[in-house]
Parts: sequence; structure tokens; C-alpha cells
Amino acid sequence: MPTILGQNQYGKAENRVVRITRDGATHHIKDLNVSVALSGDMEEVHYSGSNANVLPTDTTKNTVYAFAKEYGIESAEQFGIHLARHFVTSQEPIKQARIRIEEYAWERIEASDANSKFIGADAVKHSFVRKGQETRVTQITFDGENWEVISGLKDLVVMNSTNSEFWGYVKDKYTTLKEAYDRILATQVSGRWRFNWSGDEQKMPNWEKSYDQVKKHMLQAFAETYSLSLQQTLYQMGARIINNRSEIDEVRFSLPNKHHFLVDLEPFGLENDNEVYFAADRPYGLIEATILRDGCEPRIPVDLTNL
Amino acid sequence: MPTILGQNQYGKAENRVVRITRDGATHHIKDLNVSVALSGDMEEVHYSGSNANVLPTDTTKNTVYAFAKEYGIESAEQFGIHLARHFVTSQEPIKQARIRIEEYAWERIEASDANSKFIGADAVKHSFVRKGQETRVTQITFDGENWEVISGLKDLVVMNSTNSEFWGYVKDKYTTLKEAYDRILATQVSGRWRFNWSGDEQKMPNWEKSYDQVKKHMLQAFAETYSLSLQQTLYQMGARIINNRSEIDEVRFSLPNKHHFLVDLEPFGLENDNEVYFAADRPYGLIEATILRDGCEPRIPVDLTNL
Amino acid sequence: MPTILGQNQYGKAENRVVRITRDGATHHIKDLNVSVALSGDMEEVHYSGSNANVLPTDTTKNTVYAFAKEYGIESAEQFGIHLARHFVTSQEPIKQARIRIEEYAWERIEASDANSKFIGADAVKHSFVRKGQETRVTQITFDGENWEVISGLKDLVVMNSTNSEFWGYVKDKYTTLKEAYDRILATQVSGRWRFNWSGDEQKMPNWEKSYDQVKKHMLQAFAETYSLSLQQTLYQMGARIINNRSEIDEVRFSLPNKHHFLVDLEPFGLENDNEVYFAADRPYGLIEATILRDGCEPRIPVDLTNL
Amino acid sequence: MPTILGQNQYGKAENRVVRITRDGATHHIKDLNVSVALSGDMEEVHYSGSNANVLPTDTTKNTVYAFAKEYGIESAEQFGIHLARHFVTSQEPIKQARIRIEEYAWERIEASDANSKFIGADAVKHSFVRKGQETRVTQITFDGENWEVISGLKDLVVMNSTNSEFWGYVKDKYTTLKEAYDRILATQVSGRWRFNWSGDEQKMPNWEKSYDQVKKHMLQAFAETYSLSLQQTLYQMGARIINNRSEIDEVRFSLPNKHHFLVDLEPFGLENDNEVYFAADRPYGLIEATILRDGCEPRIPVDLTNL
Repeated sequence: MPTILGQNQYGKAENRVVRITRDGATHHIKDLNVSVALSGDMEEVHYSGSNANVLPTDTTKNTVYAFAKEYGIESAEQFGIHLARHFVTSQEPIKQARIRIEEYAWERIEASDANSKFIGADAVKHSFVRKGQETRVTQITFDGENWEVISGLKDLVVMNSTNSEFWGYVKDKYTTLKEAYDRILATQVSGRWRFNWSGDEQKMPNWEKSYDQVKKHMLQAFAETYSLSLQQTLYQMGARIINNRSEIDEVRFSLPNKHHFLVDLEPFGLENDNEVYFAADRPYGLIEATILRDGCEPRIPVDLTNL
Repeated sequence: MPTILGQNQYGKAENRVVRITRDGATHHIKDLNVSVALSGDMEEVHYSGSNANVLPTDTTKNTVYAFAKEYGIESAEQFGIHLARHFVTSQEPIKQARIRIEEYAWERIEASDANSKFIGADAVKHSFVRKGQETRVTQITFDGENWEVISGLKDLVVMNSTNSEFWGYVKDKYTTLKEAYDRILATQVSGRWRFNWSGDEQKMPNWEKSYDQVKKHMLQAFAETYSLSLQQTLYQMGARIINNRSEIDEVRFSLPNKHHFLVDLEPFGLENDNEVYFAADRPYGLIEATILRDGCEPRIPVDLTNL
Repeated sequence: MPTILGQNQYGKAENRVVRITRDGATHHIKDLNVSVALSGDMEEVHYSGSNANVLPTDTTKNTVYAFAKEYGIESAEQFGIHLARHFVTSQEPIKQARIRIEEYAWERIEASDANSKFIGADAVKHSFVRKGQETRVTQITFDGENWEVISGLKDLVVMNSTNSEFWGYVKDKYTTLKEAYDRILATQVSGRWRFNWSGDEQKMPNWEKSYDQVKKHMLQAFAETYSLSLQQTLYQMGARIINNRSEIDEVRFSLPNKHHFLVDLEPFGLENDNEVYFAADRPYGLIEATILRDGCEPRIPVDLTNL
Repeated sequence: MPTILGQNQYGKAENRVVRITRDGATHHIKDLNVSVALSGDMEEVHYSGSNANVLPTDTTKNTVYAFAKEYGIESAEQFGIHLARHFVTSQEPIKQARIRIEEYAWERIEASDANSKFIGADAVKHSFVRKGQETRVTQITFDGENWEVISGLKDLVVMNSTNSEFWGYVKDKYTTLKEAYDRILATQVSGRWRFNWSGDEQKMPNWEKSYDQVKKHMLQAFAETYSLSLQQTLYQMGARIINNRSEIDEVRFSLPNKHHFLVDLEPFGLENDNEVYFAADRPYGLIEATILRDGCEPRIPVDLTNL
């Protein structure tokens, strides 16, 4: 046979699970999108169509919902660890499980004064509005021995309206760009960070606290870096995370430069003193890099995926 | 000639304008997407291609950017009023202008403690993160005499995890739905509200305050209504706005019922006590209605548009 | 009570139904997205939450699937007529039904020569590839007496690489555009056309043939019009339909001007003789108009919706 | 310094270039979306913000447009090869260039009979409608010595309405799926194939012909495989390509199982004899695998990207 099977994986993608936990009248919500990918001894299903080693993707979906009841959802990372361990340890042909999860954040709706007075603040402890900012993501991989947890976020849009310059670059025959000494710097952050936790005998990170702290440090680094290039800002964002969070060894960012072009108002007899900008869609600069704790190996793939 | 021209309009759509205002080191940002639609004596350009009455769409784009400098952007509504008045009063063939605006909200990034101490809180007064929740919208229409302002929002996702029932409905031969006495009620709010301000001699509403108050009342009505149907909740949301905001005479909502189905866990020997839900995409119930101040005429179109 | 209920409607939106018809080994496919909107005596469900007059949206979904079996899907229009008649005639409180349908076209996959020879051409008469061009749409409205059918399409992208000019327009203080004597004209057609069929006693149009013919005439008018403005082209497209298709009285188009800007290559010592263009996203000119058969009343709404 | 820089790259993404070639009255069109990613000696711009080694992303954009004039666009692959060679050979700090291109296909609009007769068939040789089916993609990578070309497509939706089964799979405590002996098999193909062409001294493949042939073989394998699992179909699609196209050594597919569930019509007293299906959105099975020419090394990444 002149062709052979290479890497392969399968599972149910985008299982939308919402878990409500009732603490008296106060409800809590976890809202996830869970994708399962399994691999192992799967040659036959590709070569002959025999499903003898294939746990149906429908079963992996059922398992997601059953586990939301059996284990609850403490955090996306912890939930993914339960799922990955189950698939690898319960099915002999399955040698590796990769669980990807998106999480959508919700905030509570505040009660009206009138309502609080008459029927008590508890009345709206079951009402939520979706926060709508970034989407939190995580990926858990388990091969029966080693764990890898890569968390992150996407679609977090940030802007500095000053403290950004761009000059001193290479000029070739196709260069027309003018140097800038005070420009808007804006990007839509897609970031992933890899934890150095690799197994059950180690103390597990506090996944919820870690996420909040990483996001805070990343935003502050973006805000506080006087930027001579988006690459410099990107590096500072990654370095700030690694320097402040000992549980993380590697960070990768994909940062589109959301160009805000100063509009030329001179034809209308007006001066544009860094006041009026055109927010462009395409094309956009795209800056991507990995920042590593010194001595660590890079393992986050170069291309960040959407799921 | 067997065919004639009916209603027509033209202009530049989706002009993305960002206006930065510097108050010392503290920057303020307005981030709009402005669409211009003009109509008037435009028969000839359709019949013969003569552009003698046509102000180019490119010029309407330039005007948006020039006005962002000349007038600033106090609010989306006020900015739209400047634009609409200009087109109708400066170009004889243009009899009506309709300005539609989307607005994206931004929040400030908080400074790190270390940074605040050493370089002062001002350091990050130019740094923002996009709020990412709903998109605020407005539509200004002016025909040279009368003004109509319809504001609103879209993509605001809300959920009550209890206090919702659905029973007592009609059952025909195609009905299989079981009655529900405790369900999740979730929707993605698209709403529009019409102001009774209709001209320059009237006191203009405080557009920014009005928006914040309308959103607050709408959210509270959603949270505080014990719901027997999404229609009932919708009506309460509209009535709460009209009862609390005298500047508004009409509200219309388009509310998709974002179904959260309780997952059947019995096959796995588990009981699902309103804990684990499947968040469905399609199909979805779609509930749409207008709520009017008694005695007022409806003028918001039945179909809400995306732009 | 200071607020009252205005126009309202409800139903299940985006029911994705695929109907396979087997003609021996040859299969046929109809692939629809059906949205139901019902209105009538629905005050109580809004005011008090009583569902006594409410046929559940879930039942309207079931009806779509049951009718796909009971009546088959001859055309989207015919299928919508069956549904609209059913809801209005079978439920006393329902006074009007509006059915909106999107249709996705499929083509057959051609058999390989080897396969045709050995196992016969029938082997692949059940294999399809989605055409992927425009989405066909229709809207059926029935109030118990009168029928209105508005069909159309969206997302059909067309381009003329020459035979388009734009000059002789109004110039004001914000005008900077240079006149063009040979430009690309491209647009993404969204069009709707209203049939004059209004009831069961009239001979029903051949919906499938009508659609094919309207699309053909529309494309040919786009291609064959030497254009001095997109408005002129739009009018020709509508007039060509009405002049050739007696079953149609009204057409409305929403045509974004998909700008293709000639790139300035002079800084690189190159001449751009209408060869290299930048295809822009936003902003875009937006040209919208209705074309009517003389003597007919316009009834297609000004804003075309997505569904 | 406790952090170091890992893999990094930058460039302008999504340059939308349309190239018109005039062959007398007959025009030809190439419509591309080109993304440039460069890497090399870029430590300083990350560490200190020095742009001394940085060719601006704006310049890479200009180069795309200039090359569309200088070299024309014979094929997306050939155009990417010109660009990659230029960046690596003309800028000392740049050690590797990766060019990604999306291509959108266009068809000619046919002239009307009347028009052909009176003004000749040439009249519409400049008029096009976007085909709208799959998006063709390619990725060219050059490090100064070796070339790698990976081409492919995305968003090609296919369906077999019979000749698909699924049974004989593993059943665990979470399995509820019933075996299927005649089901719809549908997927939205995302595929990539790697050419064994690796340098200028080799004869270059005919990129246009290769693409057409690969697509044809892939579709035929999908149509002609009697499927016991989507994995089996996927493998056949890949093997068919490799067996028929000697220029290709590796294929990878990401195939979402677009579930079409047979609707249960029994509650309505109807039998559903494989006629009426519900086309589901999420979740979906996701089947991914690489197929290799025996003896070749896999080099296509596991995760296919959107760009």
C-alpha cells in the first residue's frame, strides 16, 4: 500500500454545557464550550472502517454532561483534567486525550433600590448578564503519564492613545511609511500560557486565581510600557507574566496591530492634533512571539487556533 | 416607461471614527461606526446616470471625520444630529438624512500598585480595554423640519437561572413539548427606543444619562420579573422603560429565546436537579413586540436591522 | 395603565430542514432554513403571562418537519404557503403568519471515469457539493384572506472590471474624490422581488423557474449596463426584471459598493494601468432603491433583513 | 534576565489584492488575500524596541501590490514564491519568509441572447460573479535554501445522502447512540496537501492544474466510498490524492461531521423513511488525520489554521 496513516484524532467538538450551582437563593454559573479530541490505536477505522476501537463521539458528548453533574465545574482546567483522565484510563485503545474549553464570563445584574427594599436583595441572585469581554480558553493534554495545561484568552481588545512611537526602521525601495512619534497602539490580544504543572503528585495551581492575575499583569504591562514597537510591548506583556507567576513557564501572543490612522483634515482647513482617527480593518500588522522562562523548552505551537 | 423609481437612498456606510480627547494626561475616547443615508431629488442618477445632484458617498465619509474635529463627539446622538442637519440644510437636492451609529464602550485599565507608587496614577490614563458587552446604537432622521431619534442596543446576553415557567399553552396534533415549572430564561437583547424629542426648540434629552438609565431599568425588569412566558418579560422590560423615562414614548424588542435544555442524565444513573444544561444554537424562539406610551403612535419598524 | 402593546409576533426561527427525495438511485435534496412568525390575539400573554392563546414555538418547529414529510418541498415558496395557511386556518387566535425561508443550493458531484465504467453512473447520484454562491430567500405572508410572496437572494458578489465611470457629481468643501473614467464596479447583491400573485384562485407562478429567470436577467443587466453610477446599474437591474417577468411588480436592492481602489504604484517607479487594485472592506457606499411596475404600490420594506 | 525570546514572526496580514489582466476585450481576474510573516534576527526589537532590523509591515504590504504589477499573478503559489524569495534574499536580517494566500474564484456572467446578437459576445467579457464555493489556500515557506509549498482549501461542503453506516463501536456506561445502517454523511472539508517540490532546480508543478485535479479526486473519493465511518472516508480521500498526484506526498484533513439527524415523526403518526432531517450546528464530531506517501515524513501541522 503506497499510503500510510499519520497523526489522527477524533472526538465531539463544541459541547455547550451550562452548570448552575444553587447556594440557597444565590446561584452560580459556569458556561463552557468543551471540545474532546482522542487518539490511540485507530488504524483500523481509517483503513477498513472497523469501529471496534472507536468510542463514539456521541459518547464523549454524553460524558461531558455527565461529568458536569458528577464532578461539578470548579474551573475549566479542573474539569478538563477530569475528562482527559477518564478517556485515557477507561478505554484501552485511547492513548491520549486533548480537551479544549472556551469559557464565557457572566456578571450579576444589580437589583433596583425599590426591589431591594420590598422583596430583598436575594430576589435577583439568579440573574446574570454576560460580561462579553474576552473568551477564556484552556487546553488539557494527557497521555497516561504526563499532563500539559495551556490556558489563555482571545478577543481582548486594548488601546493606548499615546506613549507609542515607530521609527528607525529599515527602508527599502518599497517603503513609503512615515515615521511616527505619537501614535495609537491597539491590538486584539490572543494569548496562551503554559503551566509547569505536569502531574498529579505536584500541587495543582489555583486555576481561577492564576487566570485573574495573569490577565491583570498582562493588561498592566500593556498600559505601562512606553512602546517603540508592538514587538517590544508584546515581550513586556509576556515577561511580566513569567516574572510574576511562578506557575507559568511559557507565553505566546498573536497580536494584530489594529491600525488607527490619523485622518488628514488639511483639505478641509482643519488641523488634526492626534484627535480624529480612522480605525482600519484590513490589512493589519500581525506580531507573534513566544516568551520563555530561561532554561525552559517551548511547547506552545506557533499557530494559535480558534478553538 | 413601464417601470418607475420608488424609495431610494444612498451614502457611505460604516465609517469607523475614533475620537480622542485629551484632558491633560487623562484621555477620553469615543469609538463609533457611522453610516450615512441620504435621499431627495435623485431620479436622474437612477434613470440616466447623471450625478448632477449627487454628493459623493466619499464626501459624506469626509464629513464624518471633519465633524469629529469641528464638533467633537459629545454623544452618538448629538453627533448624528450635527451630521443630519448639515446634509439636509447644505445640499438643496437632499431632502432627508438618516444617520445610523454603532458605539463601542471602553473601560480604563487600572494601574499596578508598583506603577502607581513610582510614576503616578496618570501613567495609565491613556490605556483602555474594550468593554465588549452590548453594542449601543442610534438612528437620527431629519427631513428639514422634524427630527426622529431612535436609540437602542444589541447583543446584550442575559439569563435568569430560575423564576421562569412555561405551561398552559395551546396543544395541537404537532405539540410534544412538556410543560416547565422551573426553567432557565435567557435571551440576547436587541432593543430600540424612540425619543419624543422632535426638534430644536425642545430641550434636548441628556443622551448619555438616558442610555445608562434605560439599560439599568431594562436589566432590572428582566431580573425581577417572575416569568410565565418570554412575552411577559419582554412587556415588563418595555413598560419599565416607559414608566421611568419620560423622554421615551415607544420601545421595541427582538428577543431570541436562547434555549437551555435540561440534559437527560437518567441513562447514566444520575439525577439532573436543574444543574446541567445544553445551550442550544438553532432553532430558537423569537419574540418581538412594541410597547407604547398610551396615546402615542408606533413608528419603530417591525424589523430591527443590524446596522 | 400608561403603556400598551403594539405590533407583536412570535415563533420558532431558523429551523434547519433537509428533505431527501429518492427517485430510484437518484436522490434529490432541498436544504432550507425556515423561520415562523405568528401574530393575532396575543395581548394576554404579554400582559399577564397567560399562554392560553399561545401555540408553543416548539410546536411550530415540529410542524415544519412534519410538513416536509406530508407535503414534500416542491419549492421554498410552495412550502411556505402550506405552513402559513396551516397556522392561520387551524388556530383561531392566530390572525397572520409570516414564513421566511433561506435556501442553500447543491450540485451533483461528477463520477470519475473509472467509477462510471465499473459500477455505473448511478453510483454517485446521491453525492452533492454545496454550490455556495448566493443564498435564496423567500417570505410568505398570509392573513386569512390575502397572500404576499416576496422572494430574493443575498450575498451574490458581482464585478465589472471596466465600463464604469463616476464623474460630474456635486462638490462641496468636504469633497476630495477625483473623477473616474474607467473603474471597477463590484457589489454584493441583496435583492427582493414581490410577486403579484395574491391568492389561491389565481394561477400560481412557477417559483423555481421564476427564480432562475430573475437571477439570469439581473446578472445580465449588471453585466451589460455601461455604468455612470451604481444607482443607474441598480435601476437597470430592477427594470430588466420587471420588464421580463410579468409575475413581479416590485423589486428592491441594497447594493454595497465594494470599492476596489487603484493602487498608487508611482512611488515604486511603476505605472498602474488599471491592473492592480486594493479590495476595501469598510467604509463602503450603500445604494438602495425600489423599482416598481408603473401603477403598483410599493410594499417591500425599506430595510432588507438578514433573515 | 529570567525570560528569553522564543519563536517570533511579523508581517502584514490580509492584503487584499485584485489583479485584472486585459487580453483585448477579454479580462481575467485573480482575487487574493495575502499574508506575510517574516522571521530572523529580531531580538532587539523585542528586547529594546530598536527597529534597526525591522522592515515595516507597511512595506511588506506595498511589496505585495508592486509584485502584482511586476510579476503578475500566474497562480497563488507562484506569486507567493516570488514574494518569499524577495524578502529572504533582499534583507539580511530576514532568514525566513512564510506567505499565506487565500484565493476566491470567479466565473463569467453569460451574455443574454439579445445582447450577443446586437453588440457581440465581447460585451460581457469583463463581467464576473464570485463562484462562492470553497476558498483555495496556499502557504509558501522559504528559508534561503529550502522551499515548502502546502496548498489546500476550506469551506467545501459535501454530502452523501446514503451509502453511510455507523455501527460496531465501543459501548461504555455513557453510550446511548443507536447504530445506524443508512445515514447522511456530510462534512465541511478543510484540507491541506504538501508538494514534494522543494527548490528551484526541480521542475515546478503546474499549480493550477494540480489544484483542479486534487479537488476532483477528493470529491470523487468522497462520493464513491461506501462509508462505515467518516475516518474511512477521510482516509480514502487522502489516499486517492496521493495515488493520483505524484507531486504530493502528504495530505491532512479536518472534517467536522455535519450531523443530519433523522427527525422522529412518529408522534405525528408519520413514518420517516430517510426523508426528513434536522441539520444540526453544534456539537459536531471532528475527525482529523494525516495521510502520507509511504516513506515520507509528516510536516503539515496538526492544527489547520484559518489563514
